[in-house]
Amino acid sequence: MAQKPSLPQGTRDFGPRQMSRRHYLFSTIRQVFEKFGFQPLETPAMENLSVLTGKYGDEGDQLLFKILNNGLNHPSKEEKARGAFEQVLQGKNDANLTERALRYDLTVPFARYVVMNQHELSFPFRRYQIQPVWRADRPQRGRYREFYQCDADVIGTDSLICEAEIVLMISEVFQKLGLQDYSIKVNNRKVLSGITEVIGAAGKETDFFVAIDKLDKIGVARVLEELQERGFSPAAIAALEPLLQKQAQGSVTLPFLQELLAQSETGTQGVAELQEMYQLLEAFGGTGAPLELDLTLARGLSYYTGAIFEVKPTSVQMGSICGGGRYDNLTGVFGLKGMSGVGISFGIDRIYDVLEELNLFPTAAESSTQVLIINFGAAEQPHALRLLAQLRQAGLRAELYPDSAKMKKQMDYANKKGIPYVMLLGEEEIKEGKTALKDMQTGSQERLSPQEAIQKIGRA
Amino acid sequence: MAQKPSLPQGTRDFGPRQMSRRHYLFSTIRQVFEKFGFQPLETPAMENLSVLTGKYGDEGDQLLFKILNNGLNHPSKEEKARGAFEQVLQGKNDANLTERALRYDLTVPFARYVVMNQHELSFPFRRYQIQPVWRADRPQRGRYREFYQCDADVIGTDSLICEAEIVLMISEVFQKLGLQDYSIKVNNRKVLSGITEVIGAAGKETDFFVAIDKLDKIGVARVLEELQERGFSPAAIAALEPLLQKQAQGSVTLPFLQELLAQSETGTQGVAELQEMYQLLEAFGGTGAPLELDLTLARGLSYYTGAIFEVKPTSVQMGSICGGGRYDNLTGVFGLKGMSGVGISFGIDRIYDVLEELNLFPTAAESSTQVLIINFGAAEQPHALRLLAQLRQAGLRAELYPDSAKMKKQMDYANKKGIPYVMLLGEEEIKEGKTALKDMQTGSQERLSPQEAIQKIGRA
Repeated sequence: MAQKPSLPQGTRDFGPRQMSRRHYLFSTIRQVFEKFGFQPLETPAMENLSVLTGKYGDEGDQLLFKILNNGLNHPSKEEKARGAFEQVLQGKNDANLTERALRYDLTVPFARYVVMNQHELSFPFRRYQIQPVWRADRPQRGRYREFYQCDADVIGTDSLICEAEIVLMISEVFQKLGLQDYSIKVNNRKVLSGITEVIGAAGKETDFFVAIDKLDKIGVARVLEELQERGFSPAAIAALEPLLQKQAQGSVTLPFLQELLAQSETGTQGVAELQEMYQLLEAFGGTGAPLELDLTLARGLSYYTGAIFEVKPTSVQMGSICGGGRYDNLTGVFGLKGMSGVGISFGIDRIYDVLEELNLFPTAAESSTQVLIINFGAAEQPHALRLLAQLRQAGLRAELYPDSAKMKKQMDYANKKGIPYVMLLGEEEIKEGKTALKDMQTGSQERLSPQEAIQKIGRA
Repeated sequence: MAQKPSLPQGTRDFGPRQMSRRHYLFSTIRQVFEKFGFQPLETPAMENLSVLTGKYGDEGDQLLFKILNNGLNHPSKEEKARGAFEQVLQGKNDANLTERALRYDLTVPFARYVVMNQHELSFPFRRYQIQPVWRADRPQRGRYREFYQCDADVIGTDSLICEAEIVLMISEVFQKLGLQDYSIKVNNRKVLSGITEVIGAAGKETDFFVAIDKLDKIGVARVLEELQERGFSPAAIAALEPLLQKQAQGSVTLPFLQELLAQSETGTQGVAELQEMYQLLEAFGGTGAPLELDLTLARGLSYYTGAIFEVKPTSVQMGSICGGGRYDNLTGVFGLKGMSGVGISFGIDRIYDVLEELNLFPTAAESSTQVLIINFGAAEQPHALRLLAQLRQAGLRAELYPDSAKMKKQMDYANKKGIPYVMLLGEEEIKEGKTALKDMQTGSQERLSPQEAIQKIGRA
């Protein structure tokens, strides 16, 4: 009996309409990346397990999709495979059972690529990469086991021009996509470290980050309570309060931070970096980008060492749609030290949802057929085929319904596929060298020469 | 100690230069597919194992990359996992160890998609799909474990217009890519069946196909010998000989086949199909496509039921770069009967190699930066940034070298990245409101206004 097929949990098909819109998103972002000198890279879906493990923490390791080695049923492999299987039952990896896994993000494969090709690449190396990644997360609304990442990184320079360019790229991407209501939150890891220093809690960065990250949700009083519970001294809490108040009101300024962090070398450097980034943006001619200094922004802190970015839409309920920052040691784990870089990642699935909710996808993002010729049967068919060739020569996306089915069926097909024009080429039209062009939205019909029809369809 | 990273066997990174060229290939093919009314589809990398097994023969099943289930180290799963592992050691699958596998081609996922979405799709459904597939083949020159397929199929009609359009698409793709030296070999499964019928070997199709497939390599005499060894009767062999001679000379014609197959209903239908396809191509206004009737073309016979296509370059030593045909029961295995379709698949890796060997990639297929501004240091930097913004506003792909490194280093960077123009903006140029534009190929340098420079770069 035929089986009823299904999709693996947490994965999706993308049909024609979604795909056209995703192509539009990808190509918009790609164009901006390329305008800023970033070049495309693709890496394999599978990486050697040793490249991936230990890079994403214990939790990340558990979420890798591992590939079962092939040929395990060969007698020569059985013994080792049995030993390896016992390891797997204990939550460990063993190359005799699984040598490879699906990539978990695009960052580690990028670092591997840079290290393997360090002698051929010219640094600073700017690459972008748009590919799916896989995570064995529990699927839920908006969280998938396969999803695309869309990253741009420049590695091999610590120039803050790169940070400024990240802001410019974000602002150009969303301007091109027509999204106006968003803010780019900016912070600097060194500023955060400076704050913990000056309040006398230098060793407690992580606790501080976890607490301050909730400011938006729980407010100043409860953040301070939480810090108290986590063992922050009354002096530290008293020193923090005015800062948190200012952050809650959105009135933290660079001069304020400069004064606050005067005693911390790291903090002072962080403020100077932010300042320089703002100045560089001015030198670029300014940007209308809605930049917002946000001290609660503490994403990926095990990783970022300087600037931190995050973009949130403001008129739609939605988390971060884009994020990134400066890191200093991405390739160190593979033996290449001293490479500083800065990167940005666009969250395609969420941006898609935002544009859809705000009705921002342009009609041009639909790449469907522009005109369908109705099939009247054998007598008219040679004329229809010649007309079809003419339409395509003019660059139109055109089809002839391949069978001489009932008119209603052919019209339904055009409607369902979202084809805006239909052409009728009956005996009379053929005699006159014309065609009847029907606008499927208005229902109106005109008798036009092929050339006139082509112009009308092309203009739509 | 840092580990030295490596790539899994049979997989590849695609660096900037390859990626730009691959983008050019993909987008050329995509444009043609869309012009013919095909719409994009993407399916997940992973499919449920039950969707894939049994679709590619025993050998194919062995080449599936299976995903190890996650969470096997949970005590509640141990017992079942142990049982499943014993199955795997015997070469079987068991959902308690592996539920999913990576897709092996794009055809089975397409069939699954059609069946799962049959009530929403409008038929005939035309889709194209450009995605990687994975096979645990032994890697060798030109054979990879991860490679892209690039397919277009129309399903839900048996109109031969679709066959004619396949030929037109092939010819338009290669015309756009500038490849002139190729031939489109055409055959029809019904013609092949007819031949075995009329020579009185109706039950021995497979033997016949395997033997005739070698005609090109071993010649008529040895093919006939082989058929004799495989038990074909002297009468059958005598009947075949003139046909094989004709095929070896490339002089098989439709009237000849018509006469030869007059006694076979199936064969006659096959000839009629070929005839109609040729007539439809004429009605389309003719095509310059180098069509060639080739009775030895017997690819994928377990699968194709009507037309069979294969494209080979003629001035480069290379196998098939494109192939396809008509099938009648793609979705039957998932319970949807009676869907006839026809499809084509472009072999991207081979087409890439052919274009490279013939030097057919246009310069425009490089999406690298068009102009690099040299970084002279802090004093000139604000001017350089403003100029950079101006270049990008004009739509150019432009960079400023982010550090004020030595001139030689910056020039080397431009050379290595293949950037055709470099701009120098020193004290004097700034005073004059000009820029020195250096053509990296000729070495010549001109002092131009930014507007003049933009025009010159844009024209290149």
